[in-house]
Amino acid sequence: MSLEVFEQIESEVRGYVRNFPVVFDRAEGVYLYAVDETPYLDFFSGASVLNYGHNHPELRQPLLDYIAAGRITHSLDMASRAKEMFLREFKARILEPRGLPHKVQFPGPTGTNSVEAALKLARKVKGREKIMSFTNAFHGMTLGSLSVTGNAFKRSGAGLPLTHSDSMPFCHYFGDDFDTIEYIDRLLADQGSGVDLPAAAIVETVQAEGGINVADFDWLRRLEALCRQHDMLLILDDIQMGCGRTGKFFSFEDAGINPDIICLSKSISGYGLPLALTLVKPEYDIWEPGEHNGTFRGHNLAFVTATKALQLFWCDDQLSQEVDRKGRLINDHLQGLARRYPELKADVRGRGMMQGIAFANADMAGTVSKRAFQHQLIVETSGPEGEVLKLMPPLTIDEADLSKGLAIVDQALAEAVAVHGGDSMPVRAIFD
Amino acid sequence: MSLEVFEQIESEVRGYVRNFPVVFDRAEGVYLYAVDETPYLDFFSGASVLNYGHNHPELRQPLLDYIAAGRITHSLDMASRAKEMFLREFKARILEPRGLPHKVQFPGPTGTNSVEAALKLARKVKGREKIMSFTNAFHGMTLGSLSVTGNAFKRSGAGLPLTHSDSMPFCHYFGDDFDTIEYIDRLLADQGSGVDLPAAAIVETVQAEGGINVADFDWLRRLEALCRQHDMLLILDDIQMGCGRTGKFFSFEDAGINPDIICLSKSISGYGLPLALTLVKPEYDIWEPGEHNGTFRGHNLAFVTATKALQLFWCDDQLSQEVDRKGRLINDHLQGLARRYPELKADVRGRGMMQGIAFANADMAGTVSKRAFQHQLIVETSGPEGEVLKLMPPLTIDEADLSKGLAIVDQALAEAVAVHGGDSMPVRAIFD
Amino acid sequence: MSLEVFEQIESEVRGYVRNFPVVFDRAEGVYLYAVDETPYLDFFSGASVLNYGHNHPELRQPLLDYIAAGRITHSLDMASRAKEMFLREFKARILEPRGLPHKVQFPGPTGTNSVEAALKLARKVKGREKIMSFTNAFHGMTLGSLSVTGNAFKRSGAGLPLTHSDSMPFCHYFGDDFDTIEYIDRLLADQGSGVDLPAAAIVETVQAEGGINVADFDWLRRLEALCRQHDMLLILDDIQMGCGRTGKFFSFEDAGINPDIICLSKSISGYGLPLALTLVKPEYDIWEPGEHNGTFRGHNLAFVTATKALQLFWCDDQLSQEVDRKGRLINDHLQGLARRYPELKADVRGRGMMQGIAFANADMAGTVSKRAFQHQLIVETSGPEGEVLKLMPPLTIDEADLSKGLAIVDQALAEAVAVHGGDSMPVRAIFD
Amino acid sequence: MSLEVFEQIESEVRGYVRNFPVVFDRAEGVYLYAVDETPYLDFFSGASVLNYGHNHPELRQPLLDYIAAGRITHSLDMASRAKEMFLREFKARILEPRGLPHKVQFPGPTGTNSVEAALKLARKVKGREKIMSFTNAFHGMTLGSLSVTGNAFKRSGAGLPLTHSDSMPFCHYFGDDFDTIEYIDRLLADQGSGVDLPAAAIVETVQAEGGINVADFDWLRRLEALCRQHDMLLILDDIQMGCGRTGKFFSFEDAGINPDIICLSKSISGYGLPLALTLVKPEYDIWEPGEHNGTFRGHNLAFVTATKALQLFWCDDQLSQEVDRKGRLINDHLQGLARRYPELKADVRGRGMMQGIAFANADMAGTVSKRAFQHQLIVETSGPEGEVLKLMPPLTIDEADLSKGLAIVDQALAEAVAVHGGDSMPVRAIFD
Repeated sequence: MSLEVFEQIESEVRGYVRNFPVVFDRAEGVYLYAVDETPYLDFFSGASVLNYGHNHPELRQPLLDYIAAGRITHSLDMASRAKEMFLREFKARILEPRGLPHKVQFPGPTGTNSVEAALKLARKVKGREKIMSFTNAFHGMTLGSLSVTGNAFKRSGAGLPLTHSDSMPFCHYFGDDFDTIEYIDRLLADQGSGVDLPAAAIVETVQAEGGINVADFDWLRRLEALCRQHDMLLILDDIQMGCGRTGKFFSFEDAGINPDIICLSKSISGYGLPLALTLVKPEYDIWEPGEHNGTFRGHNLAFVTATKALQLFWCDDQLSQEVDRKGRLINDHLQGLARRYPELKADVRGRGMMQGIAFANADMAGTVSKRAFQHQLIVETSGPEGEVLKLMPPLTIDEADLSKGLAIVDQALAEAVAVHGGDSMPVRAIFD
Repeated sequence: MSLEVFEQIESEVRGYVRNFPVVFDRAEGVYLYAVDETPYLDFFSGASVLNYGHNHPELRQPLLDYIAAGRITHSLDMASRAKEMFLREFKARILEPRGLPHKVQFPGPTGTNSVEAALKLARKVKGREKIMSFTNAFHGMTLGSLSVTGNAFKRSGAGLPLTHSDSMPFCHYFGDDFDTIEYIDRLLADQGSGVDLPAAAIVETVQAEGGINVADFDWLRRLEALCRQHDMLLILDDIQMGCGRTGKFFSFEDAGINPDIICLSKSISGYGLPLALTLVKPEYDIWEPGEHNGTFRGHNLAFVTATKALQLFWCDDQLSQEVDRKGRLINDHLQGLARRYPELKADVRGRGMMQGIAFANADMAGTVSKRAFQHQLIVETSGPEGEVLKLMPPLTIDEADLSKGLAIVDQALAEAVAVHGGDSMPVRAIFD
Repeated sequence: MSLEVFEQIESEVRGYVRNFPVVFDRAEGVYLYAVDETPYLDFFSGASVLNYGHNHPELRQPLLDYIAAGRITHSLDMASRAKEMFLREFKARILEPRGLPHKVQFPGPTGTNSVEAALKLARKVKGREKIMSFTNAFHGMTLGSLSVTGNAFKRSGAGLPLTHSDSMPFCHYFGDDFDTIEYIDRLLADQGSGVDLPAAAIVETVQAEGGINVADFDWLRRLEALCRQHDMLLILDDIQMGCGRTGKFFSFEDAGINPDIICLSKSISGYGLPLALTLVKPEYDIWEPGEHNGTFRGHNLAFVTATKALQLFWCDDQLSQEVDRKGRLINDHLQGLARRYPELKADVRGRGMMQGIAFANADMAGTVSKRAFQHQLIVETSGPEGEVLKLMPPLTIDEADLSKGLAIVDQALAEAVAVHGGDSMPVRAIFD
Repeated sequence: MSLEVFEQIESEVRGYVRNFPVVFDRAEGVYLYAVDETPYLDFFSGASVLNYGHNHPELRQPLLDYIAAGRITHSLDMASRAKEMFLREFKARILEPRGLPHKVQFPGPTGTNSVEAALKLARKVKGREKIMSFTNAFHGMTLGSLSVTGNAFKRSGAGLPLTHSDSMPFCHYFGDDFDTIEYIDRLLADQGSGVDLPAAAIVETVQAEGGINVADFDWLRRLEALCRQHDMLLILDDIQMGCGRTGKFFSFEDAGINPDIICLSKSISGYGLPLALTLVKPEYDIWEPGEHNGTFRGHNLAFVTATKALQLFWCDDQLSQEVDRKGRLINDHLQGLARRYPELKADVRGRGMMQGIAFANADMAGTVSKRAFQHQLIVETSGPEGEVLKLMPPLTIDEADLSKGLAIVDQALAEAVAVHGGDSMPVRAIFD
C-alpha cells in the first residue's frame, strides 16, 4: 500500500501527508502504526485534537456500546439522550465549578464553525461590524474566521479582500517595552485614530499556529478590562489550548478572566470525533431560533465520548497537575537544547504541554521535523515562517515515551545543525 | 427525562428541538424512538443526511469492527488505510463510471466547509471576487456561504453587509415566460449593466431549503453554457440533492452537465457522520499545499461507512430506480391532495424523493408539520415563508411505511384545514 | 500653438482632447473658437453644463461686477450675501412653485459630491447599507458614486470590488414585455431572494451616459411607489437632465413624482462654474453639523451666475416650451435619418433636447462624431459600447444654428456609411 | 440681512456658519467684511485655500480681463489656451526646478477628487486593494477618501463599514520613544501579522484637521524608504500644506522625498476657485483615456488665476522666507502663551504658517475661537476633540495685522481661562 492513490486522486491542497508520507492504519495512546506496523510516536496529537491520546480504551467502550445498541447517531439539533447527558455533564463538571454562567451552542462540528458563530453573535449583540484580532492569530479557514486570521498565505487563499477586522499587536509583539494594551487603548479612545470601534476582540491565550506566542496573564486581564471599558465583547478562542492543553480545562483560568464567548472544539470529544461548542453568556444569547444552523450539530457519537472524557479526566485536578509537571519537563529540556546550541539563537516558548523552540534560521525547524519523522517521531512546525518546532504530545503520555520523544528531538536537531551549520545562519530581525 | 435541560443550558439558537419537542434515544431505519420508546416515522432524514435510513446494519458492522480493532480515528489530512479505501471506492464507483475527472478535496467535515473551499478556489482560479448565486439559494451559515444564501433572516444573522455576491433569478423565478438565463446573459454581456463579471456561479439543482424549487434540465444545461461563454466556473452544490436524493448519485446527471466544482456532504458518510468533499476538475486544482485546511478532514469513521455505503448502494441502479418510483408515488399523492383542496391553491413540487407541497397560506405548512408530529411523523417545512411542506423520507423506506407516512400527512392536512379554514385565506402574490 | 504640451505634461487619462484635438481660446453662445479663430458649433454643451450656451452676456456682466467690486469669492460654508441671494431665488423660483419642501445642501461643487452626500444620507436615514442602482446608470467617479455606476470600464478603474449596491434592470431593459418594476418588487418582497433591502434607489430619468435610455413616466411613478412600499428613499440624480434639458426645470416634473433627495449640478451655475446641490426633504435632513463637508462649498462666483440664470430663464415657461419644440425638431430629424438608412437599424431615443441615435454597428457613432468634428461640429457618443450619437446642443440655440448642426450630422453620417458600409455590418443582439 | 434664510433653507449639515454667524459681503487681503461693513481679520484662510489672501488684485485683473474678453470658461478636459498656459507655467516654475518628472492629472476641481484619483490609480498600479493611512489623517468626504480619514464622526457619516484601508500610527503617535516606522515595518514584514500588504501609503506632512500633528523629516524619509522596500506607492496629500503653507511650495521638499503621487488643491488657483491636481510619476501614469473623468476638470477661470499666482509668488524664494519668518513669530508667540498659562498644559505645534496650540481641556480651544470672533478674528479649531486652536493666516499677511490677530488670541484666551478656570480642568490622558 503506497501513497500513489492520494497523489492521483486527492487535491493538491493536501498538506500533512506530504510531511509525514506514510499510510497509517491503527493508533493507540501515543502511537500511530503504519500499515507495515511501523510505530510512530505522536508529538502532534492531531493538532491538539487528541489530548487524551488515540482511541482511549475507556472512551472506546462506551462508543462501541452506544453504536451496538442502535442508539441515535445523527439528530440535527433535536434532543437526544446522548446530548442531554453531555449537557448535564458539561454543566456539572466544567461550567458550574468555574462559575461560568454560559449557555451552550452547538454551532457545527468544527472549530471554524464555532468561531463563525461567535463573530456573528458579537456583531449582532453590539451592532458593529469590525472585530479586533491579533497579529499571528489563527481562527480558521472559512471566510469569517479567515478574516481574523493573521497568516498572509492563508489569507490570500480567500481570493478577495478580507475586511471587517483590524489586526492589533499581540502581547510582546513589539518587544517587552512596548505595552500593546496601552497602544490599543489609545487607538480606541482616540476619536481620530481611524480604527473603528469593534464589536469584539477575539484572542487565543497561546497562539499555537502563530508560533507559540504566549499571552501574559496580566495582559489577558488588561485585555478583558479594555473590552469592558470600550463596550466590546471578549471572545476567547480556546479551540486548541482548551481541554487541558495548558493544565486547567480552559487555558484562561489561570489568568482569572471571564470571556463573554468561548470557542471550544478539537479535544472536546476526547476521541478525535468532530464536535464544537460556542459558550455564550446568557445576556448575549440573543440568537433567534435557527438564526445560525448546520447539519452536523447533533453528532451523538461525539457526545458519548465527550461525556465520558469529562468524567474520566475532569473530576479532579490530577490531569492538570500532570500537564504542569510534564510541561515544565519539556520546557526544561528545550531550554537545555537552546543553551547547548547558542549559535542557533533559539527561543523556547510555551505553556503547559504546548511547548516550542523557535530558530533564528527558519529552515531549521522544518529540517528537525523531517529528521524526527525518519526516527519515527511526528512533530510539527508553526509560526509565520515555519520557524518554530512545536511539541504537543498527548497530555496522557507517560514519562518513558516523553523521554523517548525528546531524545529523538535531540538527535534530529543535532542532524539538522549538521545540515544547516550553526553559526553562519542568517539571523531574522525579530530575534534581535 | 424532559426537555428541561435543553431549555436551561442550550442556547436560544436551538431550532428543531422546538418543532419536535421529544428526547430521542435510538433509531433504526425510518424510525426514531423517544426515550419512552414512542416511535416516530422519519420523513425528514436528518435534512437528507440519512438517505439510507438510521443506523443501517450493514454500515454499522464495519464501523464497529473498525473501532474495536483500534484502527486510527483521527488523522488530520495524513494518509490512512480507511481514507485510501474510500478514495479508491469513490473513484471506481462514482467518478470513473460518470466520466468525471475531478480531484477530491476534503475541506472539513460539513457542507459549509465544502462551499467555502469551492468559493475560495473559484476566486483564486479566475482572479475575480464576485460569485453569482440564485434567488432562494441555501449554501450554509459561515460567512462565505452565507453571502451566497438567499434567506434574509439567515443573512441578517451575519451582522455585517454580505457582499461579493450577486443574486440572480433561478429557473422559473419570475414565471414561465421569463427566460432567466437570457436575462442573466444580457446582464453579463452588457458592459454597462453594473453587474461585475463573477468568478463562478453556484447553484443547486433543486432548492430544498428555498422551497423545493426545481431547475429544468434544459435550464441547467444553458447555465453551464452561460458559464463557459462568460469564462466563469460552474459550482454545483449537491450537498442536499446528491447521494441519490433525486435518483442518480448526483442530481445533475440527468441534465447531462459537467460542473467544474461539486460540493458533497450530508449523506456521503451514509451513517450520519460528518464528512464533506469538494470535487475539483484537475485543471482548476491549483491550491497550494495547505492553503485551505481544517482539523477534521481525516474523520476515518466516516470514511469507513462511506466506503461501505458506496459498495452497498452504488454498484447498480437499483436504488436510483426505487427513488424514481417512490418519488413519483409521493408526487402523485401530493397532487391528489392539491386537487382535493383546490381552495388551498397548493403547488406540488419536487424531483425524486425530494417532494413538497406549497400552500398559498404560509401558515398552513407549519400547522401540518405540527399536527403530523402529534401523529408521530417527522416532516419539516421550507421556503422563505415556511410555506412548503417538505417530504424527504429515507430513500430506503419501504412502501408500507411510505403509505403510513402519507396517510399521516393526509390526516394532518385535514386537521390544518379545519384550523385555518380553506377558502378565506390570504393568497400570496407569487401564486397568482 | 499645438497640442504638444498636453501630450507631454498631462496624464494619459485625458479624454475629450483626443476626440476634439484643437486648442480652444474663446466661446460665445453655441460656438467655441480655436486659437486660430476657427469656429466650432457645440452640440455637446460641456456634457450639459452649458444649457444656456457659453459665456451668456447677461450672466457675464453680474459676474464681472461682482469680481470687480471685490465681493467675497471663497467662503467655505459661511454665510455670504451671494449665497443668500441664491438660496432666496432658488426657493422662490424653483422649490416653492413646484411644492418641493426640500432643504438645500451644498455638498462640494461637483456632481459626484452631490451623489456621495445623497448616498451617505440615505444610508444614515435608513440604517441600511445597500443602494439600488440601475443598469447603465452613471453617477460619478468617486468611490461611492462609482459603486452605483454601471459602466464596467469605469468600475474597473476602482481597483477594488465595488459593493454595497445592487444593479437592477432599468425601464425597458429587457424589452417592452418585461415589467422591471414588478420584477424588482418580487425580489424585494421575497424574503429568500438574496437581494438585501436597500436604503434607497438612485435613478436618472434619462440615462445620458448609459445610451440615452428614457424612463417612462409611469415607470418612474411606479418606482416611487415601490420605494414607498419597501421603506426606501428615492434619490433622483438630475445632474445631467435637470436645469431644463428635458423641458421643465427638473426632468422628473412631467412624471409627477416627488423624490426624497435630488442631486443637481452641471448647468445650475449657468456659466460653466463648479456648483452642486443636494436637495433633501426636511424629515430626512438628519445630518449633524459638519458631518459632510468640503472646501469649495462656498463658490460665490457660481452663486452669482446661478442666481441670475434663475431670474433669466425660470420666471416663465418660455425656455421649457422652446426645449419641447426644438427637442421634437431634433427627434424628427433623427427619425428621418433612421428611415433614410434602414440598413443601419438605427434607434432614435431621447427626451427634450437630449436626443440620440443608436447604431447597430457600435463603431458608426464614433465615426460620425469624428467626421462631424472635421466639419466643425462638436458632438459626442454614449452608451456602453459608444454606440449612440448624442445630440445635446445648448437649450438656447436658435433654429438656424440647429439646422446647421443637423445638416453636419447628415453629412457626417453619409460619410460614415461610406466608411462602414450599411447593410453588411454586424448586428448586436440588443436590437433584435 | 440676517441668517434667517440659511436657517430656513440650508441643510442642517451647515457648519462654519454656526461658528461665525455673520453674513459676509466682500473681502480683501486678510479681511472679510460683513454686510454692515464690520471687518473680520482672517486667521483661517478658507482652510488654506486663501494662502495669498482674498481677492488678490494682481490675480483679479487677469481674471476680469479673461472673462471680459469672452474667453472660454468651461471646457471639460478639452485643450484650452488657459489650460495650456497653466501647464507650461506649472512645469516651468514648479515641476522642473524641483526635478519632479510627474504628469499632471485634472481629477475634478476639489481635494477629494484628487485623493480618489490617487487611490484608484495606486490600486490599479499595484493590483492590491488596501491603502495604508494614518491616525488622525484627513483626506476628504467621498467614500474612497473617507475610508482613509481617521475621524470617527466623519467616518460614521458613511453609513456603511469603511474598509480597504488600515490605519497606522503617525509620527510620534505613541510618544517619542515608540518608533512607528519600525513598528509598521514589522507588521508588513511579518507574514503572520494579519495586515495585508497595501498598494500605497497616503500621508500628510502636517495633519492640520487631525490636530496639527507634524511629521519629522526623518520620519517622512523613512516612510518613503518603507514604501520602496515593501513595493508600495507613496501618496503625498499636500492639499492643505502645499502652495507654500509650510514655506516651500510643496511641504515635503524640506524632507527631501519624492512621492509617487501628489495631491494638490485648495490654494493652487490662488483666488479661492475650485481646482485640483493629481501629480503622477510617468511610470505610474497607466490610466486608460477617460478611465477617471469629471465634468469640471476644465475650470478655465481657475487656470487663469493659478497661472498668475505661480508667476507672482513662485519665481523666487521670497514668499518661502516670509513664511519661515512669520511662522516662527507665531510659534514663539504661542510658546509664550503656553508658558504664561502652565496650568493649561498647552502644547504648541506646527510648521511654517500652520501653527496651533492644543489644550488639555478640549473645550478651551472652542471657547477661544468663539471669543476671538467676538473680537473680529476668525480662527478655527481642529483635532479629534476640537482641542487645538489652529492659526493659519494668509501667507501674505503683514506684521501689523499678524500682531493684531495674535493680540486678539491673547485676549480671547484670557477670557476663556476666566470661563473654564485654569488649574481645575480635567486633563486628558494624551497629554500625560
